[in-house]
Amino acid sequence: MLIERAAEYFRDLQDRIVAGLERIDGSRFREDRWDRPGGGGGRTRVLVDGGVFEKAGVNFSDVHGEFGKEMAGALPGSGTSFRATGISLVLHPRNPHVPTVHANFRRLERGDTGWFGGGADLTPYYLRAEDAVHFHRTLKAACDGADQGFYPRFKKWCDQYFFITHRNEPRGVGGLFFDYLGAGAEATAGAASTPPSPVEADAERLFDFVRQAGDAFLPAYLPIVERRRQEPVTDEQRRWQLIRRGRYVEFNLIYDRGTIFGLRTDGRVESILMSLPPEVRWEYCHEPAAGSPEAETLAAIRGRLDWANRGP
Amino acid sequence: MLIERAAEYFRDLQDRIVAGLERIDGSRFREDRWDRPGGGGGRTRVLVDGGVFEKAGVNFSDVHGEFGKEMAGALPGSGTSFRATGISLVLHPRNPHVPTVHANFRRLERGDTGWFGGGADLTPYYLRAEDAVHFHRTLKAACDGADQGFYPRFKKWCDQYFFITHRNEPRGVGGLFFDYLGAGAEATAGAASTPPSPVEADAERLFDFVRQAGDAFLPAYLPIVERRRQEPVTDEQRRWQLIRRGRYVEFNLIYDRGTIFGLRTDGRVESILMSLPPEVRWEYCHEPAAGSPEAETLAAIRGRLDWANRGP
Repeated sequence: MLIERAAEYFRDLQDRIVAGLERIDGSRFREDRWDRPGGGGGRTRVLVDGGVFEKAGVNFSDVHGEFGKEMAGALPGSGTSFRATGISLVLHPRNPHVPTVHANFRRLERGDTGWFGGGADLTPYYLRAEDAVHFHRTLKAACDGADQGFYPRFKKWCDQYFFITHRNEPRGVGGLFFDYLGAGAEATAGAASTPPSPVEADAERLFDFVRQAGDAFLPAYLPIVERRRQEPVTDEQRRWQLIRRGRYVEFNLIYDRGTIFGLRTDGRVESILMSLPPEVRWEYCHEPAAGSPEAETLAAIRGRLDWANRGP
Repeated sequence: MLIERAAEYFRDLQDRIVAGLERIDGSRFREDRWDRPGGGGGRTRVLVDGGVFEKAGVNFSDVHGEFGKEMAGALPGSGTSFRATGISLVLHPRNPHVPTVHANFRRLERGDTGWFGGGADLTPYYLRAEDAVHFHRTLKAACDGADQGFYPRFKKWCDQYFFITHRNEPRGVGGLFFDYLGAGAEATAGAASTPPSPVEADAERLFDFVRQAGDAFLPAYLPIVERRRQEPVTDEQRRWQLIRRGRYVEFNLIYDRGTIFGLRTDGRVESILMSLPPEVRWEYCHEPAAGSPEAETLAAIRGRLDWANRGP
């Protein structure tokens, strides 16, 4: 079964990503294995107070059972029995010159309908254009191997999804976001302005694409960590990082479908909220000074630029 | 008109509460006056890095206009024209032995229907029973002057409303919460297990009650500040305060109707989110040690005790 092989891939990807992060950080993740009362379970791995990461969480889960009523109308397919497997990670570096990053890849099956979803997005505190370009180009290359239409479509979808509506501001410089791939044209129609790709009619080709994207995560992110991890940090830069982390919390608790779905359906709270930053500030009416690096970062984030196609 | 007099009362209450807080803190609030594009406006007053308060926000607003569709079905009355006026405050003390407190009193009118809502609730980091008893008894006395049935009803309503469902845990030791008072029996039926009081048929008597409750806020809270503000603080106590503030953020961003309503209807973001604590921590799987003051506080919060009727 495809979903068995997908679960195996996501479990192995968790191992490889955790190993790569431990190498660069120098500290070890702790592991909590957990069972879901309704069926299935997962492995949550968390690193705290590391050399690079103030908090890093990488979760694998493979759960199954019966949907409650509130989910029945919200997902493609029919019937109430489901299985869902995937990997989800959020990394909060200590140094504000290293961006926060999120990635998630998953397969869901409901009755006879199955689909892939996922993506990866970068949230810099101090934008360096070359980092955003590298991140986007690496993800674009993974998309292009499957379908030339994927990157522009999923980049746009990402800009739309990771958006803090009440601030009228994206969460970061984006990346990829996709959902319902393989569930049929009507399921993706809302977000896709381009016609579905032939790849989407073929679950094996979609799985190939998801593996390309999952495998691209470390190459997209680790070189940025290497470049920035030793940069000196002032108290003002730390403060800005903590304020910007507050925006991350606002997005995750108010808008993120995975977080809200997990909390409302009795998911494992600590595995869901491991995405929240370890230390955060909210300051009333904080605005960066005009022309400052903080203001420039904010302007670049708000610009939702076409990073993959920017020079050099 | 009653709502004019209510707006006048709330504006004056803001002045008196801010004056009382400035006296005890030794620092001054800044004031931002703002206009709402759709009609009306407000005065937001914020104190940051004070002698007692790390962040304190006291907001007055008096707004009017037309509801959007998403509100039309959610409120009593008919038609789309409305006016809403009230005071809302959240105080985050620096010392973890001083509890965080929230209060809100408001009047809404929609077409021919008008009602009062509001309450006050206390969130200790280190519970002292005498503080919770004093807070509840002071509020109970304000209720009893209007109707002996109010305190038990509004205390229970508060315990139900300020509840962090995904943690299966109340936000704090409660206080009062009431809504839709005066809008008719069917509007309050959901939360009231007792029959409506004759006071609720008389808007003037309800306004008297709201003034009693509003005037009780400083006497309910300030003596607790006086008692606790000089207590010594360890790093571990500060850390516990920051973790518990994270629960406060979770409640406000996920469940609080006022916050969600404000953010989804283009309210002034900084006035809405001034309720968020200045500094916050999220730690993966943090559990206080058995028998510690932290664990005892949590047990008392979870117990939802009958504070007003506890000895001595």
